[in-house]
Amino acid sequence: MAKDIGLNAVEMQYLRLSLGLTQAQVADLTQTTEAEVQAWEAASADAPELAQKKLLDLDDVIEMQVLNTCDGIEALFKKEPKRRLAFVVYPTQALYQQYNPEFLGTLPLTELYNTAAWRIKKECKLVLEVDVTLVPLNVDSYKAFREAQGLGESRESRAKWAAAQL
Amino acid sequence: MAKDIGLNAVEMQYLRLSLGLTQAQVADLTQTTEAEVQAWEAASADAPELAQKKLLDLDDVIEMQVLNTCDGIEALFKKEPKRRLAFVVYPTQALYQQYNPEFLGTLPLTELYNTAAWRIKKECKLVLEVDVTLVPLNVDSYKAFREAQGLGESRESRAKWAAAQL
Repeated sequence: MAKDIGLNAVEMQYLRLSLGLTQAQVADLTQTTEAEVQAWEAASADAPELAQKKLLDLDDVIEMQVLNTCDGIEALFKKEPKRRLAFVVYPTQALYQQYNPEFLGTLPLTELYNTAAWRIKKECKLVLEVDVTLVPLNVDSYKAFREAQGLGESRESRAKWAAAQL
Repeated sequence: MAKDIGLNAVEMQYLRLSLGLTQAQVADLTQTTEAEVQAWEAASADAPELAQKKLLDLDDVIEMQVLNTCDGIEALFKKEPKRRLAFVVYPTQALYQQYNPEFLGTLPLTELYNTAAWRIKKECKLVLEVDVTLVPLNVDSYKAFREAQGLGESRESRAKWAAAQL
Protein backbone atom coordinates (compact mmCIF):
# COMPACT_ATOMS: atom_id res chain seq x y z
CA MET A 1 0.00 0.00 0.00
CA ALA A 2 2.65 2.50 1.02
CA LYS A 3 5.09 3.67 -1.61
CA ASP A 4 8.72 2.82 -1.15
CA ILE A 5 9.76 6.31 -0.03
CA GLY A 6 6.53 8.20 0.61
CA LEU A 7 4.37 8.53 3.66
CA ASN A 8 1.65 5.96 4.29
CA ALA A 9 -1.86 6.51 5.63
CA VAL A 10 -1.12 6.67 9.35
CA GLU A 11 1.92 8.85 8.73
CA MET A 12 -0.08 11.34 6.64
CA GLN A 13 -2.74 11.44 9.34
CA TYR A 14 -0.31 12.11 12.20
CA LEU A 15 1.68 14.59 10.14
CA ARG A 16 -1.57 16.52 9.63
CA LEU A 17 -2.52 16.26 13.31
CA SER A 18 0.94 17.38 14.40
CA LEU A 19 0.43 20.52 12.30
CA GLY A 20 -2.90 21.22 14.03
CA LEU A 21 -4.85 21.02 10.76
CA THR A 22 -8.25 19.62 9.82
CA GLN A 23 -8.76 17.43 6.76
CA ALA A 24 -10.56 20.36 5.08
CA GLN A 25 -7.56 22.63 5.65
CA VAL A 26 -5.18 20.02 4.24
CA ALA A 27 -7.43 19.69 1.19
CA ASP A 28 -7.23 23.47 0.64
CA LEU A 29 -3.47 23.61 1.17
CA THR A 30 -2.78 20.70 -1.17
CA GLN A 31 -5.42 21.56 -3.78
CA THR A 32 -7.18 18.26 -3.28
CA THR A 33 -10.60 17.49 -1.78
CA GLU A 34 -11.63 16.50 1.71
CA ALA A 35 -12.74 13.14 0.28
CA GLU A 36 -9.25 12.59 -1.12
CA VAL A 37 -7.65 13.46 2.22
CA GLN A 38 -10.00 11.01 3.94
CA ALA A 39 -9.12 8.35 1.36
CA TRP A 40 -5.37 8.64 1.83
CA GLU A 41 -5.70 8.64 5.62
CA ALA A 42 -7.86 5.51 5.35
CA ALA A 43 -5.19 3.82 3.20
CA SER A 44 -7.61 3.49 0.31
CA ALA A 45 -5.48 5.79 -1.86
CA ASP A 46 -1.88 7.00 -1.79
CA ALA A 47 -1.39 10.67 -0.96
CA PRO A 48 -0.08 12.52 -4.03
CA GLU A 49 3.64 13.22 -3.75
CA LEU A 50 3.02 16.97 -4.03
CA ALA A 51 0.62 16.81 -1.08
CA GLN A 52 3.15 14.86 0.98
CA LYS A 53 5.85 17.37 0.10
CA LYS A 54 3.59 20.31 0.93
CA LEU A 55 2.89 19.07 4.48
CA LEU A 56 6.49 18.03 5.11
CA ASP A 57 7.67 21.44 3.90
CA LEU A 58 5.24 23.19 6.26
CA ASP A 59 6.59 21.09 9.12
CA ASP A 60 10.15 22.07 8.12
CA VAL A 61 9.21 25.76 8.01
CA ILE A 62 7.71 25.48 11.49
CA GLU A 63 10.77 23.68 12.89
CA MET A 64 13.02 26.34 11.37
CA GLN A 65 10.88 29.09 12.90
CA VAL A 66 11.07 27.36 16.28
CA LEU A 67 14.87 27.15 16.07
CA ASN A 68 15.29 30.75 14.89
CA THR A 69 12.90 32.17 17.45
CA CYS A 70 14.48 30.26 20.33
CA ASP A 71 17.94 31.35 19.18
CA GLY A 72 16.71 34.95 19.04
CA ILE A 73 15.24 34.70 22.51
CA GLU A 74 18.44 33.19 23.86
CA ALA A 75 20.51 36.02 22.36
CA LEU A 76 18.10 38.65 23.69
CA PHE A 77 18.19 37.15 27.16
CA LYS A 78 21.93 37.30 27.43
CA LYS A 79 21.50 41.08 27.57
CA GLU A 80 18.28 41.16 29.53
CA PRO A 81 17.57 37.98 31.47
CA LYS A 82 13.88 37.22 31.94
CA ARG A 83 11.97 34.14 32.87
CA ARG A 84 8.68 35.18 31.27
CA LEU A 85 7.85 36.26 27.75
CA ALA A 86 4.73 36.97 25.72
CA PHE A 87 4.28 35.77 22.13
CA VAL A 88 1.44 37.27 20.09
CA VAL A 89 -0.87 34.90 18.21
CA TYR A 90 -3.86 35.76 16.02
CA PRO A 91 -7.35 34.54 16.87
CA THR A 92 -8.71 34.69 13.30
CA GLN A 93 -7.34 34.19 9.82
CA ALA A 94 -8.36 37.78 8.93
CA LEU A 95 -6.26 39.25 11.76
CA TYR A 96 -3.38 36.91 10.97
CA GLN A 97 -3.37 38.05 7.34
CA GLN A 98 -3.71 41.71 8.26
CA TYR A 99 -0.82 41.73 10.71
CA ASN A 100 1.47 39.11 9.17
CA PRO A 101 1.35 39.47 5.38
CA GLU A 102 5.02 38.46 5.25
CA PHE A 103 4.22 34.99 6.63
CA LEU A 104 1.43 34.12 4.19
CA GLY A 105 3.81 32.61 1.65
CA THR A 106 5.36 30.14 4.08
CA LEU A 107 2.74 29.65 6.82
CA PRO A 108 -0.55 30.56 5.14
CA LEU A 109 -2.89 29.66 8.03
CA THR A 110 -3.13 31.10 11.51
CA GLU A 111 -3.39 27.51 12.75
CA LEU A 112 0.08 26.77 11.39
CA TYR A 113 1.42 29.87 13.11
CA ASN A 114 -0.22 28.73 16.36
CA THR A 115 1.35 25.30 15.99
CA ALA A 116 4.74 26.99 15.62
CA ALA A 117 3.97 29.18 18.64
CA TRP A 118 3.10 26.13 20.75
CA ARG A 119 6.34 24.38 19.78
CA ILE A 120 8.28 27.59 20.56
CA LYS A 121 6.67 27.65 24.00
CA LYS A 122 7.66 24.02 24.61
CA GLU A 123 11.22 24.46 23.35
CA CYS A 124 11.82 27.68 25.30
CA LYS A 125 10.67 25.98 28.48
CA LEU A 126 12.83 22.92 27.89
CA VAL A 127 16.00 24.52 26.59
CA LEU A 128 15.99 28.05 28.03
CA GLU A 129 13.76 27.62 31.10
CA VAL A 130 11.75 30.58 29.87
CA ASP A 131 7.96 30.62 30.27
CA VAL A 132 6.41 31.82 27.02
CA THR A 133 2.72 32.75 27.11
CA LEU A 134 0.78 32.80 23.84
CA VAL A 135 -1.28 36.00 23.87
CA PRO A 136 -4.09 36.22 21.28
CA LEU A 137 -4.22 39.72 19.79
CA ASN A 138 -7.17 41.74 21.09
CA VAL A 139 -7.49 44.59 18.60
CA ASP A 140 -9.45 46.98 20.85
CA SER A 141 -7.12 46.51 23.77
CA TYR A 142 -4.09 46.85 21.50
CA LYS A 143 -5.39 50.09 19.94
CA ALA A 144 -6.13 51.61 23.36
CA PHE A 145 -2.63 50.63 24.51
CA ARG A 146 -1.03 52.25 21.45
CA GLU A 147 -2.98 55.46 22.01
CA ALA A 148 -2.10 55.57 25.68
CA GLN A 149 1.58 54.96 24.91
CA GLY A 150 1.75 57.01 21.71
CA LEU A 151 2.93 54.03 19.67
CA GLY A 152 2.50 53.30 15.97
CA GLU A 153 1.55 49.87 14.67
CA SER A 154 4.55 47.55 14.50
CA ARG A 155 5.68 44.11 15.57
CA GLU A 156 7.45 45.79 18.48
CA SER A 157 4.28 47.59 19.59
CA ARG A 158 2.39 44.29 19.51
CA ALA A 159 5.13 42.66 21.58
CA LYS A 160 4.92 45.51 24.12
CA TRP A 161 1.14 45.21 24.30
CA ALA A 162 1.41 41.45 24.78
CA ALA A 163 4.01 41.83 27.53
CA ALA A 164 1.59 44.18 29.32
CA GLN A 165 -1.02 41.37 29.33
CA LEU A 166 1.12 39.02 31.44
CA MET B 1 -8.37 35.36 31.75
CA ALA B 2 -5.30 33.13 31.96
CA LYS B 3 -4.03 32.11 35.35
CA ASP B 4 -0.64 33.30 36.40
CA ILE B 5 1.08 29.98 35.85
CA GLY B 6 -1.41 27.83 33.96
CA LEU B 7 -2.14 27.36 30.30
CA ASN B 8 -4.62 29.67 28.58
CA ALA B 9 -7.23 28.80 25.96
CA VAL B 10 -5.06 28.78 22.83
CA GLU B 11 -2.32 26.90 24.69
CA MET B 12 -4.74 24.20 25.86
CA GLN B 13 -6.08 23.89 22.31
CA TYR B 14 -2.66 23.52 20.68
CA LEU B 15 -1.42 21.20 23.40
CA ARG B 16 -4.43 18.97 22.62
CA LEU B 17 -3.84 19.21 18.87
CA SER B 18 -0.14 18.44 19.26
CA LEU B 19 -1.13 15.23 21.05
CA GLY B 20 -3.41 14.24 18.16
CA LEU B 21 -6.50 14.18 20.38
CA THR B 22 -10.11 15.24 19.85
CA GLN B 23 -12.01 17.30 22.41
CA ALA B 24 -14.02 14.18 23.29
CA GLN B 25 -10.84 12.22 24.01
CA VAL B 26 -9.50 15.01 26.20
CA ALA B 27 -12.79 15.07 28.09
CA ASP B 28 -12.46 11.31 28.75
CA LEU B 29 -8.81 11.55 29.76
CA THR B 30 -9.39 14.47 32.12
CA GLN B 31 -12.74 13.28 33.48
CA THR B 32 -14.48 16.41 32.25
CA THR B 33 -17.09 16.86 29.51
CA GLU B 34 -16.73 17.84 25.87
CA ALA B 35 -18.64 21.05 26.68
CA GLU B 36 -16.07 21.91 29.33
CA VAL B 37 -13.18 21.28 26.94
CA GLN B 38 -14.89 23.51 24.37
CA ALA B 39 -15.37 26.19 27.03
CA TRP B 40 -11.74 26.28 28.11
CA GLU B 41 -10.52 26.31 24.49
CA ALA B 42 -12.91 29.22 23.82
CA ALA B 43 -11.49 31.12 26.82
CA SER B 44 -14.89 31.17 28.50
CA ALA B 45 -13.56 29.04 31.39
CA ASP B 46 -10.15 28.18 32.77
CA ALA B 47 -9.02 24.60 32.29
CA PRO B 48 -8.87 22.81 35.66
CA GLU B 49 -5.30 22.48 36.90
CA LEU B 50 -5.63 18.69 36.98
CA ALA B 51 -6.63 18.68 33.32
CA GLN B 52 -3.70 20.90 32.40
CA LYS B 53 -1.35 18.65 34.32
CA LYS B 54 -2.78 15.51 32.71
CA LEU B 55 -2.15 16.75 29.17
CA LEU B 56 1.30 18.14 30.01
CA ASP B 57 2.22 14.84 31.66
CA LEU B 58 1.12 12.92 28.55
CA ASP B 59 3.28 15.20 26.43
CA ASP B 60 6.22 14.55 28.77
CA VAL B 61 5.68 10.78 28.59
CA ILE B 62 5.68 10.98 24.80
CA GLU B 63 8.85 13.10 24.69
CA MET B 64 10.53 10.64 27.04
CA GLN B 65 9.47 7.72 24.84
CA VAL B 66 10.83 9.54 21.78
CA LEU B 67 14.18 10.11 23.48
CA ASN B 68 14.45 6.56 24.81
CA THR B 69 13.43 4.96 21.52
CA CYS B 70 15.83 7.06 19.47
CA ASP B 71 18.63 6.29 21.93
CA GLY B 72 17.79 2.59 21.65
CA ILE B 73 17.82 2.76 17.87
CA GLU B 74 21.14 4.60 17.89
CA ALA B 75 22.70 1.96 20.16
CA LEU B 76 21.30 -0.87 18.05
CA PHE B 77 22.63 0.69 14.87
CA LYS B 78 26.17 0.91 16.12
CA LYS B 79 26.19 -2.89 15.90
CA GLU B 80 24.02 -3.25 12.83
CA PRO B 81 23.86 -0.12 10.68
CA LYS B 82 20.60 0.31 8.78
CA ARG B 83 18.94 3.21 7.10
CA ARG B 84 15.39 1.82 7.27
CA LEU B 85 13.33 0.59 10.17
CA ALA B 86 9.74 -0.46 10.80
CA PHE B 87 7.80 0.63 13.88
CA VAL B 88 4.55 -1.19 14.64
CA VAL B 89 1.45 0.91 15.39
CA TYR B 90 -2.06 -0.27 16.24
CA PRO B 91 -5.02 0.61 14.05
CA THR B 92 -7.66 0.26 16.78
CA GLN B 93 -7.87 0.83 20.50
CA ALA B 94 -8.80 -2.86 20.98
CA LEU B 95 -5.62 -4.06 19.25
CA TYR B 96 -3.54 -1.49 21.09
CA GLN B 97 -4.87 -2.68 24.45
CA GLN B 98 -4.45 -6.33 23.54
CA TYR B 99 -0.83 -6.03 22.44
CA ASN B 100 0.40 -3.23 24.71
CA PRO B 101 -1.19 -3.67 28.13
CA GLU B 102 2.01 -2.32 29.70
CA PHE B 103 1.48 1.08 28.05
CA LEU B 104 -2.11 1.64 29.16
CA GLY B 105 -1.10 3.31 32.41
CA THR B 106 1.03 5.97 30.74
CA LEU B 107 -0.31 6.26 27.18
CA PRO B 108 -3.89 4.99 27.42
CA LEU B 109 -4.97 5.73 23.83
CA THR B 110 -3.65 4.32 20.57
CA GLU B 111 -3.75 7.92 19.24
CA LEU B 112 -1.20 8.95 21.87
CA TYR B 113 1.01 6.02 20.89
CA ASN B 114 0.71 7.08 17.24
CA THR B 115 1.65 10.64 18.12
CA ALA B 116 4.75 9.27 19.86
CA ALA B 117 5.47 7.09 16.82
CA TRP B 118 5.24 10.07 14.47
CA ARG B 119 7.62 12.12 16.63
CA ILE B 120 10.01 9.13 16.75
CA LYS B 121 9.92 8.98 12.95
CA LYS B 122 10.72 12.71 12.70
CA GLU B 123 13.49 12.59 15.29
CA CYS B 124 15.15 9.49 13.82
CA LYS B 125 15.19 11.12 10.40
CA LEU B 126 16.62 14.37 11.74
CA VAL B 127 19.15 13.05 14.24
CA LEU B 128 20.08 9.56 12.99
CA GLU B 129 19.21 9.84 9.28
CA VAL B 130 17.18 6.67 9.67
CA ASP B 131 13.89 6.26 7.78
CA VAL B 132 11.30 4.87 10.16
CA THR B 133 8.06 3.57 8.64
CA LEU B 134 4.99 3.27 10.86
CA VAL B 135 3.44 -0.12 10.08
CA PRO B 136 -0.13 -0.65 11.33
CA LEU B 137 -0.50 -4.18 12.72
CA ASN B 138 -2.48 -6.44 10.39
CA VAL B 139 -3.49 -9.37 12.59
CA ASP B 140 -4.14 -11.88 9.80
CA SER B 141 -0.89 -11.15 8.04
CA TYR B 142 0.99 -11.25 11.35
CA LYS B 143 -0.51 -14.63 12.32
CA ALA B 144 0.32 -16.11 8.93
CA PHE B 145 3.88 -14.79 9.26
CA ARG B 146 4.28 -16.31 12.71
CA GLU B 147 3.02 -19.70 11.50
CA ALA B 148 5.31 -19.64 8.48
CA GLN B 149 8.31 -18.70 10.65
CA GLY B 150 7.39 -20.78 13.69
CA LEU B 151 7.35 -17.76 15.98
CA GLY B 152 5.42 -17.13 19.17
CA GLU B 153 3.70 -13.82 19.92
CA SER B 154 6.14 -11.21 21.22
CA ARG B 155 7.26 -7.68 20.61
CA GLU B 156 10.20 -9.11 18.69
CA SER B 157 7.93 -11.19 16.45
CA ARG B 158 5.86 -8.09 15.71
CA ALA B 159 9.01 -6.16 14.85
CA LYS B 160 10.11 -8.96 12.51
CA TRP B 161 6.72 -9.04 10.83
CA ALA B 162 6.78 -5.24 10.42
CA ALA B 163 10.29 -5.31 8.94
CA ALA B 164 9.03 -7.84 6.38
CA GLN B 165 6.36 -5.34 5.28
CA LEU B 166 8.92 -2.72 4.15
